[in-house]
Amino acid sequence: MYRILDILKEEKGYLSGEAIGKRLEISRAAVWKGIQRLRKEGYEIEAVTNKGYRLTAYDTMYNQRELETGLRTQKMGRPLYFYPETDTTNHRIRELALEGAPEGTLAVAEKQTAGRGRLGRHWEAPAGTGIWMSLLLRPNIVPAEASVLTLLAGIALTEAVQDVTGLSPAIKWPNDILLNGKKLAGILTEMDCEMSQVHFIVSGMGINVNTAEFPEELRDIATSLYLESGRTFSRRQLLQRVLECFEGLYHEFLQAGSFSPFLERYRAKCLNLGKEVRVIGRETFLATALDITPSGELVVKRQDTGKEEIIFSGEVSIRGEEQRI
Amino acid sequence: MYRILDILKEEKGYLSGEAIGKRLEISRAAVWKGIQRLRKEGYEIEAVTNKGYRLTAYDTMYNQRELETGLRTQKMGRPLYFYPETDTTNHRIRELALEGAPEGTLAVAEKQTAGRGRLGRHWEAPAGTGIWMSLLLRPNIVPAEASVLTLLAGIALTEAVQDVTGLSPAIKWPNDILLNGKKLAGILTEMDCEMSQVHFIVSGMGINVNTAEFPEELRDIATSLYLESGRTFSRRQLLQRVLECFEGLYHEFLQAGSFSPFLERYRAKCLNLGKEVRVIGRETFLATALDITPSGELVVKRQDTGKEEIIFSGEVSIRGEEQRI
Repeated sequence: MYRILDILKEEKGYLSGEAIGKRLEISRAAVWKGIQRLRKEGYEIEAVTNKGYRLTAYDTMYNQRELETGLRTQKMGRPLYFYPETDTTNHRIRELALEGAPEGTLAVAEKQTAGRGRLGRHWEAPAGTGIWMSLLLRPNIVPAEASVLTLLAGIALTEAVQDVTGLSPAIKWPNDILLNGKKLAGILTEMDCEMSQVHFIVSGMGINVNTAEFPEELRDIATSLYLESGRTFSRRQLLQRVLECFEGLYHEFLQAGSFSPFLERYRAKCLNLGKEVRVIGRETFLATALDITPSGELVVKRQDTGKEEIIFSGEVSIRGEEQRI
Repeated sequence: MYRILDILKEEKGYLSGEAIGKRLEISRAAVWKGIQRLRKEGYEIEAVTNKGYRLTAYDTMYNQRELETGLRTQKMGRPLYFYPETDTTNHRIRELALEGAPEGTLAVAEKQTAGRGRLGRHWEAPAGTGIWMSLLLRPNIVPAEASVLTLLAGIALTEAVQDVTGLSPAIKWPNDILLNGKKLAGILTEMDCEMSQVHFIVSGMGINVNTAEFPEELRDIATSLYLESGRTFSRRQLLQRVLECFEGLYHEFLQAGSFSPFLERYRAKCLNLGKEVRVIGRETFLATALDITPSGELVVKRQDTGKEEIIFSGEVSIRGEEQRI
């Protein structure tokens, strides 16, 4: 039946069942059966008497086959598991990792029923509107280096969004992607390790793509590519671009053995620098964010003592938003 | 049947089936059935005509009930799961943790079929001779603090061994316990976390207690309490003492929020300090181990550059043993 799909993809207009049957050397009844099965997989295929079949809304198709088609990566997204609905894609990847899945394995969900942000916070992840995915990584690094992967994923997300949409999101250290001051995407990096060796890392990413409306309580703090631009975008194209961008950055990181080559790019996108931040950890204090270190930590100057401190991945909020984001 | 066991435990000599039956108000046949069931659980009960029953080799009993009996802890070892044979107790605890098991949950195996040391190395763990166990911890700490738990477990192991046997093992930073220069016990700390929060930690410990003989290739580098002292020891008693010692240290660590209170004790037991070590990581170099930092890292002075460096939980071997241990 995918041969029928390929023919419909090539053809912009309508194609009769007879014409399709001839090309594939099958009966019109067989064509009709194939069309029915494609519709069951979610492809919207219009049928008009005396004209024939036409693939509509193809750009919005989002399933395993379509996500694999045209993906230009060596490793990332191979293999790819697609879940119409699951609790969280991070869970799926952890299970797959424990079963021995290779680096690059990707879980994509149409809908997440228990989507989470950092520190177990709820993340709204309804069907059809966003990209919810998790990537399995098996880098030969020590646990202390792992937080850099959150920053690399941040760069990949912002660059992919820019490539596909022309919009320019910014990064709120360490793991939020903002557009016009509202949250567009988030990253949740989880790790399984012993003290001197990482077993595996799960890089979870969520992007609000075509969301037209958020629940009341999120309206002021969350946004989507659609809400900021008035246009809808192909989730398939964006997902593939994120994987391609990330693959390049990840390879470069492993080669370099450090985050240094990415510092300039990250600084340029990081909107905390120079701003007042509230550091929430064992202690809570106000500070000015000064810089990012070569290992990806945040350098701040405390307002109370005037001293510089290095913040690991604690809790940092830009003042005024700390209750919500 | 455990009421029969309790009576046999109290009595040093022999007790007739009739006497036991009278005390419990059950028939002699019921006593006999209970004895059979206890034997099936591994209790060695001698039966002598005209004398009665006697519990023998009670000190070597090692099962869930006996390990729980007399355990003086609040949390550690509660609940306790006993496995006659399993791949590794760390695996069991990870599974239990993902199902929501509480802090303090303990897995004990009579035999591990896939025992591992750090970095996936094989650890010989046959039945009947040692303690192979893993403890579930859920501390509210950031991942960078987790390696301290390896050091705390090291202190607990050495202190428990000293309390129970009078022998004084030493610690080879970060995770080996040595007696007379040979490996007596090891610690494997594993962690599941996101970048700013630990989900859970598995503290795996292995102790060679009554091992009479090691395979050829381990003979020069491994030892047991029995081999060093000529005496056998109760694994039950030692296991319980380790849990008690660890519980105290862990509580103190969480209260203090740092490893500082333990530094002196650790330094006193750490045999690397002042010695030449080979640091094996991205780079391999010779150095002199100078000190332990308040966060549990090793301070060394490189022989090539003369500079001081801080070693996280990389690979550190005492020179001459680096191929084996």
